[in-house]
Amino acid sequence: MAQRMKGVLAPVLTPVRPDLTPDTERFVRHCRWLLDHGCSGLAPFGTSSEANSFSTDERLAMLESLVAAGLPAAQLMPGTGCCALSDTVRLTAHAVKLGCGGVLMLPPFYYKNIPDDGLYRYFADVIERIGDARLQIYLYHIPQMANVPLSLGLIERLIKAYPSTVVGIKDSAGDWNKTQALLKAFAPDFAVFTGKDAFLLKTLLGGGAGCITACANINPHGLHALYQAAHNARADELQTQVTKLVTLLDGRAYFVATYKGIIAHYAADPGWLAVRPPILELTPQQSHGVIRDLAALGFTMPGLGAAGRHDRPAA
Amino acid sequence: MAQRMKGVLAPVLTPVRPDLTPDTERFVRHCRWLLDHGCSGLAPFGTSSEANSFSTDERLAMLESLVAAGLPAAQLMPGTGCCALSDTVRLTAHAVKLGCGGVLMLPPFYYKNIPDDGLYRYFADVIERIGDARLQIYLYHIPQMANVPLSLGLIERLIKAYPSTVVGIKDSAGDWNKTQALLKAFAPDFAVFTGKDAFLLKTLLGGGAGCITACANINPHGLHALYQAAHNARADELQTQVTKLVTLLDGRAYFVATYKGIIAHYAADPGWLAVRPPILELTPQQSHGVIRDLAALGFTMPGLGAAGRHDRPAA
Repeated sequence: MAQRMKGVLAPVLTPVRPDLTPDTERFVRHCRWLLDHGCSGLAPFGTSSEANSFSTDERLAMLESLVAAGLPAAQLMPGTGCCALSDTVRLTAHAVKLGCGGVLMLPPFYYKNIPDDGLYRYFADVIERIGDARLQIYLYHIPQMANVPLSLGLIERLIKAYPSTVVGIKDSAGDWNKTQALLKAFAPDFAVFTGKDAFLLKTLLGGGAGCITACANINPHGLHALYQAAHNARADELQTQVTKLVTLLDGRAYFVATYKGIIAHYAADPGWLAVRPPILELTPQQSHGVIRDLAALGFTMPGLGAAGRHDRPAA
Repeated sequence: MAQRMKGVLAPVLTPVRPDLTPDTERFVRHCRWLLDHGCSGLAPFGTSSEANSFSTDERLAMLESLVAAGLPAAQLMPGTGCCALSDTVRLTAHAVKLGCGGVLMLPPFYYKNIPDDGLYRYFADVIERIGDARLQIYLYHIPQMANVPLSLGLIERLIKAYPSTVVGIKDSAGDWNKTQALLKAFAPDFAVFTGKDAFLLKTLLGGGAGCITACANINPHGLHALYQAAHNARADELQTQVTKLVTLLDGRAYFVATYKGIIAHYAADPGWLAVRPPILELTPQQSHGVIRDLAALGFTMPGLGAAGRHDRPAA
């Protein structure tokens, strides 16, 4: 049986050039920094990655650039779930071929009020069309964006039909009752990742696998410290710090822009600010407010000097 | 100034083969039947078309097949709005190049709670990247699927900035207050299409352009008769008939499957039943119920014999 993924995974932000094309160089550099600073894996093309703002071809090329740059495929869990069955199959087959440790799969998210039978048929069809024992699917439950929730009944059917393929879930709903129900029903064999920083400790103590959260893009070290200390005396204190940081960032500009703006500041690299519409980049005023509040919290991004570069080792 | 589109447009159902690939032959045949039986235009790749269940490449190829088969490009309004800016630009540029009379553009529909400024920047960016005076955009407001509504303020900004490009809207929300507000604010220069059969007469009397509804796939003749008679004594009676039909079809299987099942029956062509997951095809029992109720209503599809073929002229 393939190894389940676990720990802190970052849904990697996708830097873009001024013309909004993917910026491969910054992308690779950020991925390396994340793995060097606490991430056990990377989930490129998640919600924080603006995944659905890029075409299938763009996503294929970006994933190839990571592997070509020497990032370990086994630690990659790219998002591959699209509205179109054909796109999902294409992205998923490609990820398997590259040796990725898993894929993170959104349900098809255009049609609403789809019965479980329809969603089951969709996932089953993707799995059958891939037809590869190496395929490891982590389902992606994020009803506040997809508006297509994944029920416990659906997940149970998929696990029963494809026990060595449907191996985990990212639960980003932000509803502890749902995460708890997933843990009780399926953990620890089935890897439950929380998408909410504030739930990391509870998830781990409940037998969960870890977290995949936007904040891992800037705080892989803090999340990793908590992951390591989950069963130690310092756990509560570390969870409090993690929660404090993400709470401070909530409710400002659109979260993708906020996280890109933070990297732009700490890496002293304004090239990181750009986002694809419909998301808008941080205004200088918004950026100033975020950075001021982060400084007050004593937040740092190790390995990025005050006037340093993203890939420069810590002084 | 390019001619605005008007009348009854069908969001053309997309037939698929047993392996779920697009079935070009049945697609072209159905498009011809629609134009021969009351449709003034076609909106392939709408919600009823399972548009988002097909990849960009599949959509490009299907549109080319229509034009290659001799269907008049000026009467085509293909759906081109995707989540990814790059996909929307590619599909839209291609439609313009083929000479399509317009495009029907969904907003990017993955991210939610996007401010108007972000949606404005998205549409403006698409228009600027196309950079072609022939481009005619009909916005697509369908909040129950996209969960990204288009506000009056946003529409007004777009019309002001691009008066010869942003020329109309399809309002599928099913909320007469919204349609009425659009008519009052922007009709008749801006073409307001309703996506709800029951609103066709009211829309026309309010200065609207027509309708783009799923039911046009099976009842182009009935909708066309109403469109023609909107200012005549028979209008109310024809609206009642139109509404009765669509009401009878509501709340059964998923609507796409229902409409495909109806064509499968009247064209005596079971090849029409197939749908792409997550939508499920009509069961024999569901099909039987729909057909029985349609027969009781005296519904017919002219040009399709009881045991005839989709493209056979009426006996």
